[in-house]
Amino acid sequence: METTKIKVTLIGTGTIGLSFAAFHLAKLSPSQLTIYDTRSDLSTYIEEFLPKFFESGKSPADLSEIRLAVTLQEAVSDSHIIQESGPENLDVKRKLWKEVEKYAPNDALLWSSTSGIPASQQAQDMQDKTRLLVVHPYNPPHIMPLLELVPSSETSDTVISRTQDFWRERGRVPIHIKRETTGFVANRLAFALLRESIHLVNEGVVSVSELDQIVESSMGPRWSVAGPFKSYHAGGGPAGLEGFFKNIGGTVQSCWDDAGTINVGDGWEEEIFKQAKETYGTVDVSERDRITRRVLDVLEEEKGKGTS
Amino acid sequence: METTKIKVTLIGTGTIGLSFAAFHLAKLSPSQLTIYDTRSDLSTYIEEFLPKFFESGKSPADLSEIRLAVTLQEAVSDSHIIQESGPENLDVKRKLWKEVEKYAPNDALLWSSTSGIPASQQAQDMQDKTRLLVVHPYNPPHIMPLLELVPSSETSDTVISRTQDFWRERGRVPIHIKRETTGFVANRLAFALLRESIHLVNEGVVSVSELDQIVESSMGPRWSVAGPFKSYHAGGGPAGLEGFFKNIGGTVQSCWDDAGTINVGDGWEEEIFKQAKETYGTVDVSERDRITRRVLDVLEEEKGKGTS
Repeated sequence: METTKIKVTLIGTGTIGLSFAAFHLAKLSPSQLTIYDTRSDLSTYIEEFLPKFFESGKSPADLSEIRLAVTLQEAVSDSHIIQESGPENLDVKRKLWKEVEKYAPNDALLWSSTSGIPASQQAQDMQDKTRLLVVHPYNPPHIMPLLELVPSSETSDTVISRTQDFWRERGRVPIHIKRETTGFVANRLAFALLRESIHLVNEGVVSVSELDQIVESSMGPRWSVAGPFKSYHAGGGPAGLEGFFKNIGGTVQSCWDDAGTINVGDGWEEEIFKQAKETYGTVDVSERDRITRRVLDVLEEEKGKGTS
Repeated sequence: METTKIKVTLIGTGTIGLSFAAFHLAKLSPSQLTIYDTRSDLSTYIEEFLPKFFESGKSPADLSEIRLAVTLQEAVSDSHIIQESGPENLDVKRKLWKEVEKYAPNDALLWSSTSGIPASQQAQDMQDKTRLLVVHPYNPPHIMPLLELVPSSETSDTVISRTQDFWRERGRVPIHIKRETTGFVANRLAFALLRESIHLVNEGVVSVSELDQIVESSMGPRWSVAGPFKSYHAGGGPAGLEGFFKNIGGTVQSCWDDAGTINVGDGWEEEIFKQAKETYGTVDVSERDRITRRVLDVLEEEKGKGTS
């Protein structure tokens, strides 16, 4: 479908919902966007908070042209894409999709931004479970390229590929996650590294700030350019990943054997929360996002050359 | 000490040794650098391979002015810094430092690039164990900013701070690791994420290529700008890291409970090595390094503004 004709409905106006609104408004005109939320001050709320998601606080178009829906029926009845970023509550989502299904066009794509509630559970009360899938962003979605597409076993292949096409055409990186796994993929990976980070700080090997500096000056930049498999495949020389494990598989296994298995509530919290607070206070997120954009611009330009 | 007077001796001319040579030559004149290696073709070897470590294959100065030492005594007798990047073999390193100690000036700094053999073990045969520490780079050191400084319990504080100063003055990020931990810190963190990556590919959740794309489009860029603690501290809003764990500590713990505990030799190797080979063939490392430099340039420029 032509971009100029696509109608997108966003349900929920928390941080993720507004960030997705900012993303869509970079490609669509405000009149193609509908926002639905039960809050009574929706109009003034959008007017105040949505501009913060644009660089230098300026939106590219007249935000008053966004359609603010009062009923769910009105919100979804002529939409091509219905994207919910509501509370992380299964009952709420089950009821929502059951209602959406009544009013939305038959071929509308139904996306949930959830970070943890599988499409299979959300779709339980739907007649047609083929159209719903999780489209999980990496926060904030108006900046970060990744979208994890997590269908249920009933989501149709056509719906998956239409969803992939939508994001690819907009320069994003939609990855089809083949199984409904706890935490999907990105969070599982990040949390694995976070667990070891907590362990090392808890053991007094480095501080919170030193640990962050280590990641920022090594893995961060490296993995921006080449993910872990590609990096270690390169590290193994001509023998690739196999050569890497032949050379230092023993060291890898020693690290795994010695890895921390700390849990939430184990008592590390107080000291580490304190260090984080003392080191960072309140993080200037707009500054972080501005720098992240610059890094992503370099990467996008280089990938555009077909080098990665 | 003035940079123009510092004399550096490099022992070992593998990939790490040559990369360190390239790093030093960006700051020192070739005549301040001594390279020692027992290979008989050292001169032609350096001439052929060292230039590859410079951008566009051109070294900034006349490499023939590097002093190539024939004996260890000659190599170290008037050096301020002696940096070994030899084979990962404890016996070799123990003997080396015992010899180096005989001939080197009393206040020379002694650094090992090892990724796994602690300074305490390497120093066993030395009279004065206060000067030796591990200075572990993130490969390749002529590009990546991180140096893990891992002293033994006998390394003196002065030696640690002189070593930190050296690297900081050269725009690098030397982090003092407080305990001799298996794999130090960076590799432990990276291998924790690698383990979960292998698990997820092995379970068929995503492919090798998809996993890399996920990291390249999410954590990589994010952690270039803000490490894991800073990121999640920001993610928790005004309540910081504590707020983050209050909000989604349950999801974090679920991911930890479900994390893969795969080991080297468990049988995942064949399929994953094959996927890596088919996806990447031989990685163009010079291309990777060129893009990495661009990313690091952005980050350095931004940090120079005092924003991170």
